[in-house]
Amino acid sequence: MEKNSFVLRGNICYSETKDRLSITDQGYLVCEHGISRGVFRELPEAFRHLPVTDYGEQLIIPGLVDLHLHGPQYTFRGLGMDLELLDWLDTYTFPEESRYEDLEYARKAYQSFARDLQESATTRAVVFGTVHGEATEILMDALEGSGLQTYVGKVSMDQNCADDLREGNGKAALEAVRKWLHRVEGKYEHTKPILTPRFAPTCSEALLEELGHLQQETGLPVQSHLSENLSEIRWVKELFPWSSCYGDVYDHFGLFGGEAKTVMAHCVHSTEEEAERMRAKGVFIAHCPQSNMNLSSGIAPIRGYLEKGLSLGLGTDVAGGANLSMFRCMADAVNVSKLYWRLVDQTKHPLTMEEVFYLATRGGGSFFGKVGCFEDGFELDALVLNDDAMTQVGSFCTRERLERYLYLAEEKGRLDAKYVAGNQIAVHP
Amino acid sequence: MEKNSFVLRGNICYSETKDRLSITDQGYLVCEHGISRGVFRELPEAFRHLPVTDYGEQLIIPGLVDLHLHGPQYTFRGLGMDLELLDWLDTYTFPEESRYEDLEYARKAYQSFARDLQESATTRAVVFGTVHGEATEILMDALEGSGLQTYVGKVSMDQNCADDLREGNGKAALEAVRKWLHRVEGKYEHTKPILTPRFAPTCSEALLEELGHLQQETGLPVQSHLSENLSEIRWVKELFPWSSCYGDVYDHFGLFGGEAKTVMAHCVHSTEEEAERMRAKGVFIAHCPQSNMNLSSGIAPIRGYLEKGLSLGLGTDVAGGANLSMFRCMADAVNVSKLYWRLVDQTKHPLTMEEVFYLATRGGGSFFGKVGCFEDGFELDALVLNDDAMTQVGSFCTRERLERYLYLAEEKGRLDAKYVAGNQIAVHP
Repeated sequence: MEKNSFVLRGNICYSETKDRLSITDQGYLVCEHGISRGVFRELPEAFRHLPVTDYGEQLIIPGLVDLHLHGPQYTFRGLGMDLELLDWLDTYTFPEESRYEDLEYARKAYQSFARDLQESATTRAVVFGTVHGEATEILMDALEGSGLQTYVGKVSMDQNCADDLREGNGKAALEAVRKWLHRVEGKYEHTKPILTPRFAPTCSEALLEELGHLQQETGLPVQSHLSENLSEIRWVKELFPWSSCYGDVYDHFGLFGGEAKTVMAHCVHSTEEEAERMRAKGVFIAHCPQSNMNLSSGIAPIRGYLEKGLSLGLGTDVAGGANLSMFRCMADAVNVSKLYWRLVDQTKHPLTMEEVFYLATRGGGSFFGKVGCFEDGFELDALVLNDDAMTQVGSFCTRERLERYLYLAEEKGRLDAKYVAGNQIAVHP
Repeated sequence: MEKNSFVLRGNICYSETKDRLSITDQGYLVCEHGISRGVFRELPEAFRHLPVTDYGEQLIIPGLVDLHLHGPQYTFRGLGMDLELLDWLDTYTFPEESRYEDLEYARKAYQSFARDLQESATTRAVVFGTVHGEATEILMDALEGSGLQTYVGKVSMDQNCADDLREGNGKAALEAVRKWLHRVEGKYEHTKPILTPRFAPTCSEALLEELGHLQQETGLPVQSHLSENLSEIRWVKELFPWSSCYGDVYDHFGLFGGEAKTVMAHCVHSTEEEAERMRAKGVFIAHCPQSNMNLSSGIAPIRGYLEKGLSLGLGTDVAGGANLSMFRCMADAVNVSKLYWRLVDQTKHPLTMEEVFYLATRGGGSFFGKVGCFEDGFELDALVLNDDAMTQVGSFCTRERLERYLYLAEEKGRLDAKYVAGNQIAVHP
């Protein structure tokens, strides 16, 4: 039998465009060597030799992509939700992240995190670790074991943070990144490193400059945070008075798109200039709606970003966000966009189910390449959703069942199967 | 053994005041004949003859009160979330409610609803049925079987709705209420009738007048909707041009507090006059944060209502809200209050965990009498929460565990036991 080659049968949905779903009831999804060959109403002759798994009336959708979350914060999600960003970092986040110097603690915590992520609907994720190289390697080991496809970053920070998390200035901090990269190079099949300046306030210019050089040298991608909170933005302006906008700080050092594939979390309060810079340089935005509520940051103007043609995906931002579920994340994205329309700007109509589904699949997926839909040539990540417990009374078409799954996944949904790049992943304990 | 008399041991939390929790780790909660005798660090001699159930380190909290939800809408929750109130009513709600004329359908749907509510964390609820008296009796039968304490209303409406739901004008509609009341009188132990004009636009003045007389005659409580959506409010002003505010329509006919115990759902856009009228007449507000997002209604100014001293509780408003979970409802109430603070009025600081916990227990509970806390003399509704799956790594105090439970209940929580007015209710299928 050809490796990672098979056919799935069921009610198949994926995003054709930002606002249109492809729905094929009782269709055939063909996977050859981990790559989708498309969805068919009748199984073509050329694929009839492949084994078929028939999922009956269940929904089959692309895997969900979480463009931003923090592995070490999973332990305390849901805590300290009465604070804003900078106080929350000092009170909960930095003390917890300090614990990951203890490798036994890191092993226990990251195994729990990786297991839960494996059992979730997320197939790909872009993940922050801590400043600790060895603990971050343990995180990567755990995620590799989960079968998910991930980018994982050892955090870099050398100022304005808890003493026991602050790395040596500039070159010393960079040395720690190199050491970590050296240890993990070639070690994994599914797990890749990503450069991770925590956010501008905790990085000296020397460190940012070194990271920029390292990016040029290695071609590695970059993740960080951008324009999340008003106090944070004022602080960045004080620390980098020469910058024309927050994003300009990263851009100045070559850590903001262009040759450096980059994802920036939040962008709640980006200026016109910053948004235009992101568009021009192909920077991805990880929209994290629940986190932006939890930390009282505000609502990111996603409709406007879509109109401008920016690259967008969704993120849970655990533990700014409390929930690991990308279904919840989609529902939250719809909900905050309605409040944005009602309370901020009535020209920006709310996001539709189709649009947030696109963001969680193709939108975020494109950070990983040809990922996030079932068209010919895309890597095959797929979920099989069992909604029996939410459809016992009444009858619903496939689109309606998908919409309801977004809202009811945690209460009544069950993930019956999960495939990542053509590999089936165990989802039940 | 004395009926409904027992002791529960565990980590016990309840609201002392709007912003202070009482927490007793490894305490004893005493119940005599369904009434709480308080929480003790050591079990008093007088209660040592009672049987003790030791729940170890688990959390024991008061039952949660859902002040507003629609039984017949449970079947299609999570659907049509791209519409505003009036379109959503016409497209999804009225067609679905029409199906409850079929008593077989009603039986099937209401059994599913009552079973799920029984297994949820809700111990008391104020529930809308449909216009159908017989179907509403089936709903009451099902809820009586669940062991929950509920108010249930046959809906009254005689204008501006789907033809097959419109009752005969005024007196005819009132006759249907009387017939329903006659059938259910004295039938139930836990289930009480409540007068239910759907909302002002679907009620003629003749009907409202009749309902007001019936209220005076019977002393029954009243539930309806108020100031949810801007188009709705304009419509009310057109229909009742003499009214000084939306609430004035109900008040004019004696359906707005005072002698008539009343709960009004939403109050997102209440004027100063309306809020003051609610305060003066003791009208309860059912704050339904998720519904107000889903239907793009806005954010109710709950901080302001608390400052004014209004009577407040929380509601899921299924199916304007998609989720039955009152934990989710509390988390949503915190979240939207943060966006209100950030986007609308920075003098109204966000609701705290303590405050939303108060609203979901004592706040809403007081609509039912002495309900919602464990102080001496209150009816004993209690939940035993198992958070093992969310505390495997790290260590948390009881307050922290409670806060995390609000955010993680659906993902990782398990309800281990539930008591309503001293009766233990089965929560696992």
